[in-house]
Amino acid sequence: MTPDLSISTLLKAYREGRRTPEKTILEVWARAAEDDPSIWINRPSLQHLQHYLRALEGESPDTKPLYGIPFAIKDNIDCVGLPTTAACPAWSYEAQESAYVVNLLIEAGAIPMGKTNLDQFATGLVGVRSPYGVPQNAFDARYIPGGSSSGSAVAVAKGLCSFALGTDTAGSGRVPASFNNLVGLKPTRGVLSCSGVVPACRTLDCVSIFALTAADAALVYNLTASFDEADAYARKRCMLREPAWPPRIGVPPMDQLDFFGNESAKRLFESAVKTVADMGWQIVETDISPFLNAARLLYEGPWVAERAAVISDLIAENPESILPVTRNIIKGGLKGTAIEAFKAQYRLAELKRISEATWNQADVLLMPTTGTIYTLAEVEDEPIQLNSNLGRYTNFMNLLDLCGCAVPAGFLDTGLPWGVTFYAPACGDALVLGCAGHFHSAVKLPLGKTTTPSSSAALPVIPAAEKKVPMMQIAVCG
Amino acid sequence: MTPDLSISTLLKAYREGRRTPEKTILEVWARAAEDDPSIWINRPSLQHLQHYLRALEGESPDTKPLYGIPFAIKDNIDCVGLPTTAACPAWSYEAQESAYVVNLLIEAGAIPMGKTNLDQFATGLVGVRSPYGVPQNAFDARYIPGGSSSGSAVAVAKGLCSFALGTDTAGSGRVPASFNNLVGLKPTRGVLSCSGVVPACRTLDCVSIFALTAADAALVYNLTASFDEADAYARKRCMLREPAWPPRIGVPPMDQLDFFGNESAKRLFESAVKTVADMGWQIVETDISPFLNAARLLYEGPWVAERAAVISDLIAENPESILPVTRNIIKGGLKGTAIEAFKAQYRLAELKRISEATWNQADVLLMPTTGTIYTLAEVEDEPIQLNSNLGRYTNFMNLLDLCGCAVPAGFLDTGLPWGVTFYAPACGDALVLGCAGHFHSAVKLPLGKTTTPSSSAALPVIPAAEKKVPMMQIAVCG
Repeated sequence: MTPDLSISTLLKAYREGRRTPEKTILEVWARAAEDDPSIWINRPSLQHLQHYLRALEGESPDTKPLYGIPFAIKDNIDCVGLPTTAACPAWSYEAQESAYVVNLLIEAGAIPMGKTNLDQFATGLVGVRSPYGVPQNAFDARYIPGGSSSGSAVAVAKGLCSFALGTDTAGSGRVPASFNNLVGLKPTRGVLSCSGVVPACRTLDCVSIFALTAADAALVYNLTASFDEADAYARKRCMLREPAWPPRIGVPPMDQLDFFGNESAKRLFESAVKTVADMGWQIVETDISPFLNAARLLYEGPWVAERAAVISDLIAENPESILPVTRNIIKGGLKGTAIEAFKAQYRLAELKRISEATWNQADVLLMPTTGTIYTLAEVEDEPIQLNSNLGRYTNFMNLLDLCGCAVPAGFLDTGLPWGVTFYAPACGDALVLGCAGHFHSAVKLPLGKTTTPSSSAALPVIPAAEKKVPMMQIAVCG
Repeated sequence: MTPDLSISTLLKAYREGRRTPEKTILEVWARAAEDDPSIWINRPSLQHLQHYLRALEGESPDTKPLYGIPFAIKDNIDCVGLPTTAACPAWSYEAQESAYVVNLLIEAGAIPMGKTNLDQFATGLVGVRSPYGVPQNAFDARYIPGGSSSGSAVAVAKGLCSFALGTDTAGSGRVPASFNNLVGLKPTRGVLSCSGVVPACRTLDCVSIFALTAADAALVYNLTASFDEADAYARKRCMLREPAWPPRIGVPPMDQLDFFGNESAKRLFESAVKTVADMGWQIVETDISPFLNAARLLYEGPWVAERAAVISDLIAENPESILPVTRNIIKGGLKGTAIEAFKAQYRLAELKRISEATWNQADVLLMPTTGTIYTLAEVEDEPIQLNSNLGRYTNFMNLLDLCGCAVPAGFLDTGLPWGVTFYAPACGDALVLGCAGHFHSAVKLPLGKTTTPSSSAALPVIPAAEKKVPMMQIAVCG
């Protein structure tokens, strides 16, 4: 049975003296050692972990909000003392210091249990593009785990940590959440620092959070959403000006949705919309074509040049060190011209402008996280097109500067989990977390692979923003 | 003698019945017909102007805030009924409707007196790169007028209109203001719509305003700063949150300034700093190296690809139709790769982040608008380097998302006018206009080529922003 390692459950046990961080860490370390080795690329030794446990001496959940909470780190995010591979051994380096967000988590008392497997260079939504093997989907090993943050998602679902960091450029923080029955928060771009993170598309990258509940994701978000001056793309934490609650939920007309033949997923989406309506929230039918058009820009457009910029030397010097599928995708980025790059940016600006009208009628959009899920065999047969299908409802998000929270919505006929995502404009993190939390509670599902019901979870609490950015009317007169 | 056509002067005369719009329009039309023909590329006929005059029947300065005010339009901005050439006859087209900002001005009662000459495709700061001749500098025909908005600046200085629209990507709205004793406002990027404007670098372009006084520029700004949904790069009008008044003025250390050997300009800058100090404003010595580094990116980096994107077809099909100097610059943009474009954007984001620290210690920066001014002969000898010298204090501004207002600071030993610019972050339009207005009043100079003293001018009034953008602290709780 998978233990419930949700943060609130662990902290409660620590507070009541029923558990110690040491016991938790030893247990999850040992369970990870016996479970699927493909989940991890590197795990610290028990001796190494003692260092973190010692730092908790004299502390408590009152002094360290993540006191003794085990977490996992996608292996394109630095953790001091461990290599960062980005799932490419030839590219690996020893991290000299931890990423900005990892440092914040460790300072808060969380304990890093290891570096997780991913689609190489975070390129993919499938979770099978790694020389370190394929992490097994937590529910059915015949199916893909989802990617690129495959190991992080599976580790949380299987109770090998309480939460995990991923990254999310095109959907890598949401797709594996959906396929492993988790909450996956893709925060507003830049609010979580990317210092110490291997870039995919540097103008679009986000650090993401996998958790069992929206409340856990909100807690981790609150502790990591801290402005990092050293990251040129960092932004001050912000909140949407109108605390629209309950929010108006924009839902696409069914003819704009493609479930790629998965009737069971379609029924789950219809049921999700009904759940929202039953919660008493207003449903607004919303045209999502500007979002779908933007999604296509991501891989068809010049942004793949950003991926190529990261590894152009490696492609030139040691092309064999990169998986063929990954190499072929990223090599496409070597060819584009600056004119094409700017023209695509113009096109994106136009789509963004068109998409903005959406937010006059809806506060939050509800979409499937993916249209369907595939087996390992299906993806092996058709690695590019099926990967692309999985990004239909995720690729546009960072391009259009949105934030979103993926949340479980139920189980497919096949027994695989499946989810939906709540989207809002940048600075709507509290809003999408709030939606995800209320929805999760209403759909009454088990958390991850545990038997704990989602309806028992606390709802997310988002405290005040780091800094208010009021705009005043002023007159400069003589 | 050059008449004082400042907006307030004309409106007062209309209100007191000492003038009619018809009389003004006839007079300035006739004076333009006798003056330097190189100022204009196209002027409407008197018959054509009757249409605008008739629209004022029954109106007054109380109903139309620019009632009967003549203005000029740089010929890369559309005005219905006239061709738009961008100073390239082969590229010319008949404007089917007016640019968004031109429409707003006409609706407010202003009357377009013609389309003004410019450096071809707005590429240049010299004002000599046009097949339509070189508009003579309003003060000394041996010197360059400055560009690219050469004709617009000269027309205002010579009393051929009350104000003029220019564009400003790299300094085209500030350099010619400086060289013709004018106020030149480069507003926050996107606040004035670019719909109906020929792009130079579409991600950076701004419509700019030439006026005799900061108060006039502020009035025109107030009437044109209206959000245009159709322009993907438009932004809602905004104001800096802190009405810092009097502002702390950042001034570069003298060793960061280069006057290219012009000792007279250096003395004028020192004198400008003294004027500010005498006004009782706090002076803060400020490192401007992040700004100077960003300035170099503009022409050395991939942004020239944006210029190439606009005319790549013309370059391929009819290269001879483009001036050699312009063609050679813009052709450079055909070569760049998408990787280079993204890498330069990363570099810019880093410089922007570094530059932001400046605004913790200063509210506004004061810099020379240009280090010096050149003769036509000098620029003919060395067309690229001297043009580049002129952009030292202007090129960085749109890249770093600043706004600025160029303002006269005095006359050089040669008798040529020379100016300084007040800079602030985006949304600081009111602040820089306020600084320029107070400074202009304090330096006591004639307005343009008139004998009206600047100290008699009203100070700019900036009313409330179109829309407040407050950010609230919210909690989404269960």
